[in-house]
Amino acid sequence: MFQFKPVDEAVLEALIGIVGAENVSTAVSERQLRSQDMSRFPPSLSEVVVWPETGEQTAAVLRVANDHAVPVTAWGIGSSLEGHPIPLHGGISLSMEKMTAITAVHADDFQVTVQPGIGYKDLNAHLAQYGLFFPPDPGANATIGGMLANNAAGIRTVKYGASKDNVLAMKVALADGRLIRVGSRSIKQAAGYDLLHLFVGSEGTLGIITEAVLKLTPVPNLMSAVVATFPSVETAVEAVVAVRGSGLDVAALEFLGGGTAALLTREGGVDFGNKPTLLMEIHAAHEQSVTLDMGMIEEICEELGAITVHAASDADERRELWRIRHDMFEIARRAYADSMWQLMDVAVPISAYPEMAVHVTTTLAQYNLDSLLVGHAGDGNLHVIIPFKDEAVRADVEKVNKAIVQKAIALGGTSTGEHGVGIGKAPYLRMEHGAGLDIMYAIKQTLDPKGILNPGKIFVEQAR
Amino acid sequence: MFQFKPVDEAVLEALIGIVGAENVSTAVSERQLRSQDMSRFPPSLSEVVVWPETGEQTAAVLRVANDHAVPVTAWGIGSSLEGHPIPLHGGISLSMEKMTAITAVHADDFQVTVQPGIGYKDLNAHLAQYGLFFPPDPGANATIGGMLANNAAGIRTVKYGASKDNVLAMKVALADGRLIRVGSRSIKQAAGYDLLHLFVGSEGTLGIITEAVLKLTPVPNLMSAVVATFPSVETAVEAVVAVRGSGLDVAALEFLGGGTAALLTREGGVDFGNKPTLLMEIHAAHEQSVTLDMGMIEEICEELGAITVHAASDADERRELWRIRHDMFEIARRAYADSMWQLMDVAVPISAYPEMAVHVTTTLAQYNLDSLLVGHAGDGNLHVIIPFKDEAVRADVEKVNKAIVQKAIALGGTSTGEHGVGIGKAPYLRMEHGAGLDIMYAIKQTLDPKGILNPGKIFVEQAR
Repeated sequence: MFQFKPVDEAVLEALIGIVGAENVSTAVSERQLRSQDMSRFPPSLSEVVVWPETGEQTAAVLRVANDHAVPVTAWGIGSSLEGHPIPLHGGISLSMEKMTAITAVHADDFQVTVQPGIGYKDLNAHLAQYGLFFPPDPGANATIGGMLANNAAGIRTVKYGASKDNVLAMKVALADGRLIRVGSRSIKQAAGYDLLHLFVGSEGTLGIITEAVLKLTPVPNLMSAVVATFPSVETAVEAVVAVRGSGLDVAALEFLGGGTAALLTREGGVDFGNKPTLLMEIHAAHEQSVTLDMGMIEEICEELGAITVHAASDADERRELWRIRHDMFEIARRAYADSMWQLMDVAVPISAYPEMAVHVTTTLAQYNLDSLLVGHAGDGNLHVIIPFKDEAVRADVEKVNKAIVQKAIALGGTSTGEHGVGIGKAPYLRMEHGAGLDIMYAIKQTLDPKGILNPGKIFVEQAR
Repeated sequence: MFQFKPVDEAVLEALIGIVGAENVSTAVSERQLRSQDMSRFPPSLSEVVVWPETGEQTAAVLRVANDHAVPVTAWGIGSSLEGHPIPLHGGISLSMEKMTAITAVHADDFQVTVQPGIGYKDLNAHLAQYGLFFPPDPGANATIGGMLANNAAGIRTVKYGASKDNVLAMKVALADGRLIRVGSRSIKQAAGYDLLHLFVGSEGTLGIITEAVLKLTPVPNLMSAVVATFPSVETAVEAVVAVRGSGLDVAALEFLGGGTAALLTREGGVDFGNKPTLLMEIHAAHEQSVTLDMGMIEEICEELGAITVHAASDADERRELWRIRHDMFEIARRAYADSMWQLMDVAVPISAYPEMAVHVTTTLAQYNLDSLLVGHAGDGNLHVIIPFKDEAVRADVEKVNKAIVQKAIALGGTSTGEHGVGIGKAPYLRMEHGAGLDIMYAIKQTLDPKGILNPGKIFVEQAR
């Protein structure tokens, strides 16, 4: 276990020297605001909140923290679902809220250079004038820095990839105060180790991203959506495999369990019914492509026994559909406001999706647990939300969680497709990676020997 | 500098114990066969060639090598252009020639599991029956292991990505004899550090890839090609930027300088004329898409002053076109068989491609050097081949090389887009990465403290 030191007067003075008094606060209210994310994990207070405005300031803050053995946990907007930005060991909450600049739009290159604190929705609103967008869309207005640190994904990853697939270069502040560049604005890169992707997804435990060059995509000319309902989870997920296997280049392929569809119908103002449902979206350059693709999707769904298949080409209807899907997690949280809950994020090869889905429903039934199923099915990603009120049920919930993760890994998949490790998935990394976890930790020790960067995340056995 | 030890009797005995006497050879002929690649660098003999047949054997060989401080340089098929597989410090030439199995085809998942020694052309021939292919195509029948270790790319990277974009999981043997798994068969992955991409492109200096799960793509229904010639390099590369900027999803976008076109016309049996030329390919699911896309390409080329624009929808003609393009490097080597040569591989953001191309031609003219220009222009990747006969010219060639690399980096690009670092690009990594190079080396030291893995590559200043 690392020995951290408190944030004392000397540290505060040094921090103020770097970012100015207006960007350092020990006020309880500020610390409380950044003590908790959207996960189920309890809040934990930092000792001080610091708002750097540049990469150089960020690096200088880390140098001070490292010199004084003070933990540093980065803060974006707190939309994480696994506790990443919770300052478990106190220390500095490093807020990127003042680093929101769009530094340069390279429209001809389909690239943009940004600071990490900007929300991806705000970025896309700005990029609309160029006919370009940054495709990953995890839902809440997550910051670019948080998305990259977590390799966030979302509903359009099936076509456009996750955050890691949409970044070309970054500046990263290291624990010892160095500020390095990784990657290049060239699409092709073969000049040494891929440090870019080492820092992407490292959840603030290896360095702090202070700038990023993102890969953009032209806004598609045409979009169209299909909603299909099925008599069972099995038939719905078989349709997922069939659609993917057909080679159709779908832009979104989402699965809702019957309970989830019913919840959204009840609380969201849409008519999804109460059956297992697939939401699909097609992006294309030509009208003919859309028509042909939509026809193929409808055919596949009908062949596999869909109860209803509805095409939604109208832009307003389509937007409403995805708004509801994006709000699903918030709607669930409101519906189960007085419950505790467990959230899963397993992902498997697409051919194993039916087996995974059946295993989930069987296991949940076995323990008689309430649940909501929702998945980025086109990626093989399945979320299971288990709300529960009785503390006595927690042991069962943990058993189910473990069983589901084990099954996903046995099927060649992963414990987390897009939510990241944070606190919640850390216990499963040994099961998933074996000795690979030791290599991760060896790299962590090399880059952050004092362990000041986001302690308590990713590595749990090593911290003991 | 590391202190390596010779391959003595004890080492040979241990190696034979692992892979059997039939898979260990100290014969000069075998060592000579694996002493040189397709680069300009002189051969260097290993002390022994070892052919493992499994990942476990590979790991065991590394353990022996590490225990005895014997260098290990992996060998695929020797198609590298930067000296990667040359055993500069002797030791073991670790040949993957017997690890060519296709372990599993996961057709529903568009995935295949292979051993590293299989050639990508052989793999694609096997996959044709499934209507699937592995898109990166560097040209020579490079092995999958070599392609991954080098992050090789090729002419279709503009649509399908480089090797790094088409791999999901690997097994890697480490210097100390551990065999680890990295990545997952799930498309989405957020479970800890991205070790997969750390090993991809590490050129055998961090570990040896012993198995890979590759991402496959359905063979497109329809393909069509366009050949356009231009009055100048400037107009040709402006057309490249315009085609890319239009949002057209081209599958290949290749540039040939006038001299290169003339050489291929003279030696390759095609009629490319002798003007700067663009070769483009469109892949699509629908006839209408092809027609519309081809029309747009022709329009853009004509607007930018193309002299000729020729559509080649005929499959034989198209195949012939790409065969010649793929053979270009071999044709050039034959044409300049009695010359020394320098090969460049810079890549820049696409908007900087015209400035890069002009800088190259101006610099070459300034030194009055002969040259062949050829580029994966759609990726911003430009190859310059400078043949020269007189040793006295070498200093000028080096000056030109350095100036071109400097310019590429200044334009936000890289010293190597796809050939990798090996021996040739190592001197430029400090210029490109600054302190990032120290981080790469810190990771190298963590995973390979004795420096046995491919010594003399990537890191030159550190080795002094």
